[in-house]
Amino acid sequence: MRLTSPGPTLGVVGGGQLGRMLAEAAGPLGVAVVVLDPTPDCPAATVARDQVVADFDDPDGVRELAERADALTFEIELADPDLLAEAAATADVPVHPDPETLRVIQDKLVQKRRLRERGIPVPEFREVDDAADLAAAVEDLGAVMLKAREGGYDGRGNVPVDPGDDYDAKLDAIGNRPAMAEAFVDFERELSVIGVRGTDEVRAFPVGENVHREEILRTTVAPARASKAVRERARAVAGDVLDAMDGRGVYGIELFEHPDGAVSVNEIAPRPHNSGHWTIEGAVASQFEQHVRAVLGWPLGAAELRDPTVMVNVLGDVDEPRPAELSGVPDVLASPGAHLHWYGKREVRPLRKMGHVTLTPTGDEDVGALLARGRDLRDGLSFR
Amino acid sequence: MRLTSPGPTLGVVGGGQLGRMLAEAAGPLGVAVVVLDPTPDCPAATVARDQVVADFDDPDGVRELAERADALTFEIELADPDLLAEAAATADVPVHPDPETLRVIQDKLVQKRRLRERGIPVPEFREVDDAADLAAAVEDLGAVMLKAREGGYDGRGNVPVDPGDDYDAKLDAIGNRPAMAEAFVDFERELSVIGVRGTDEVRAFPVGENVHREEILRTTVAPARASKAVRERARAVAGDVLDAMDGRGVYGIELFEHPDGAVSVNEIAPRPHNSGHWTIEGAVASQFEQHVRAVLGWPLGAAELRDPTVMVNVLGDVDEPRPAELSGVPDVLASPGAHLHWYGKREVRPLRKMGHVTLTPTGDEDVGALLARGRDLRDGLSFR
Repeated sequence: MRLTSPGPTLGVVGGGQLGRMLAEAAGPLGVAVVVLDPTPDCPAATVARDQVVADFDDPDGVRELAERADALTFEIELADPDLLAEAAATADVPVHPDPETLRVIQDKLVQKRRLRERGIPVPEFREVDDAADLAAAVEDLGAVMLKAREGGYDGRGNVPVDPGDDYDAKLDAIGNRPAMAEAFVDFERELSVIGVRGTDEVRAFPVGENVHREEILRTTVAPARASKAVRERARAVAGDVLDAMDGRGVYGIELFEHPDGAVSVNEIAPRPHNSGHWTIEGAVASQFEQHVRAVLGWPLGAAELRDPTVMVNVLGDVDEPRPAELSGVPDVLASPGAHLHWYGKREVRPLRKMGHVTLTPTGDEDVGALLARGRDLRDGLSFR
Repeated sequence: MRLTSPGPTLGVVGGGQLGRMLAEAAGPLGVAVVVLDPTPDCPAATVARDQVVADFDDPDGVRELAERADALTFEIELADPDLLAEAAATADVPVHPDPETLRVIQDKLVQKRRLRERGIPVPEFREVDDAADLAAAVEDLGAVMLKAREGGYDGRGNVPVDPGDDYDAKLDAIGNRPAMAEAFVDFERELSVIGVRGTDEVRAFPVGENVHREEILRTTVAPARASKAVRERARAVAGDVLDAMDGRGVYGIELFEHPDGAVSVNEIAPRPHNSGHWTIEGAVASQFEQHVRAVLGWPLGAAELRDPTVMVNVLGDVDEPRPAELSGVPDVLASPGAHLHWYGKREVRPLRKMGHVTLTPTGDEDVGALLARGRDLRDGLSFR
């Protein structure tokens, strides 16, 4: 490998905040990023080399992206695996992770079956096609999370179901799509491990601890405040998950810590993950840099912790969509070790991910104090 | 202040590596960067929002840049202060640092006089317009560095002069331009302090230690391996320098450490400086982020050290210009805590700055080991 000028171009299907942060990580490495996104002037456009304006499943658009790239990847699970595979083959460029892996992960039932086959701990689950299936699942498992098999993210497509609920209404709530029911886990903590598969090496970042509300990630603390044994178990499970995946790249692996200290896999994302944003400041090489390196077949970077880190999401606190204008920013900018990440989305919508703030400690500040500071700063930010 | 989408646009005169790294730092803050540079597809273009292709002193180009920007700055001392002031006034946008400061700094004789007036220690110097002036200066000061008053950088325009040399030949070597002669300092170490002036606050990064060869920066070690007293003296002098400057922004302040522990100012740059590249990984907020914040009038970030850091420059090791293709890169990518920065210059030329590598320690690696590792990695990189 020799590094040239211009350097290699990475084609990314999706130009949201993940594409934006990929481009930000690619810049110092001399890698140009071209994104494909249907929204003109999408979040990644400001920092990327260029944008192909096209729908994620537009064959001509994806082919154009592949033609302009030296390697192809995606930042959204909604990418079309067949189209990715075909465009990459036609343009004779690699695509990572493997579109087959994307296909497995897109279908939550297939994903869970694959994990179970490999001996990876997952909550009990049942296939659900109709109300009778759901009734049977609840009979077997007690309270469950009903999940549409495809197309859900940030909790969309997920509804909790208790015994005795109106099962037809619950299926309605997820659009009567093919679904699965998963035993409700009364977890101690939500954890996640960001892992990366390179050409012939695998790395995992320290375990993060996540707090969701309304099924949307609010906060990540790294390292997780779980016992050493639990953290080691989480990393071991994440290692098994990475072994079960084909193709290079970053994977976000969400886990439950059970009250007895066991861990099980909740969900996998075949891409950089919101719960890994802390790695930009908190780890030696960020998840975005790792993804760029992995997809290009370059050596991976060090995934070690630099400092304990807190990440808080900046979500839309509005009732209706409106042009995005954020107040409270000077307090974030003035807070020592607080790093603002603004995604540049034109419109704020209820609970939309608009940015995040990462905090590293100053002086001998402990994680509790850091977390409190992060939440205070976040609570001071408003679009209203 | 409210942060909007799109965020503010920063117009930067110059699109070399400094403009590129400014754009890389601006991205996460939601700030778009437009650069002005005569070279189409200049280093900053890949990561910036856009480029105005025009000469640095092209009035229409600078006016266009100002019209598209919410604030104006520059990354090269060759920018024209009058043009900057006029374009900023016409477009009604602020320009920082103050063009008057740029004018003072551009003329090394005026710069040194200004510093001396403010009681800031500088080597003894004399104005030199002809061979008689130079002879008189050498008579007074002994060995001197003869410096063209304007237009020099990376040692271009500087020649050492010893008593008895052919003074006419020395003046020829700097193009017979108006010059100054500065007493040759037999320094113990070269130091630098990157300082930043905000709206009503000033910050300084920890003192760095620089190694030059052929008058080009090769290596920076931060913090400098000087005594605590010397480092405090350097920071105090840097504080006085910042007080003597008008306008917000980052200043690179190069200093000599004398054998007796005194410090004096060598040169000042009214912009982010090569000797501050280590701050990207080594400090809480980098010099580039600080410059963006300062120019926009935002609160400054923390300038504290995160980890001891070594920066090595990647210079053109060729005899003749040729298309840039760098070998040895995988060893850098695989070295833990080594961060590659590739500027994307199309052509490598003898001693041209093509990129740099920053290293932070792994495990209990000390600065000596880190420096050795950095030099080994650099020596393994070649354009030949």
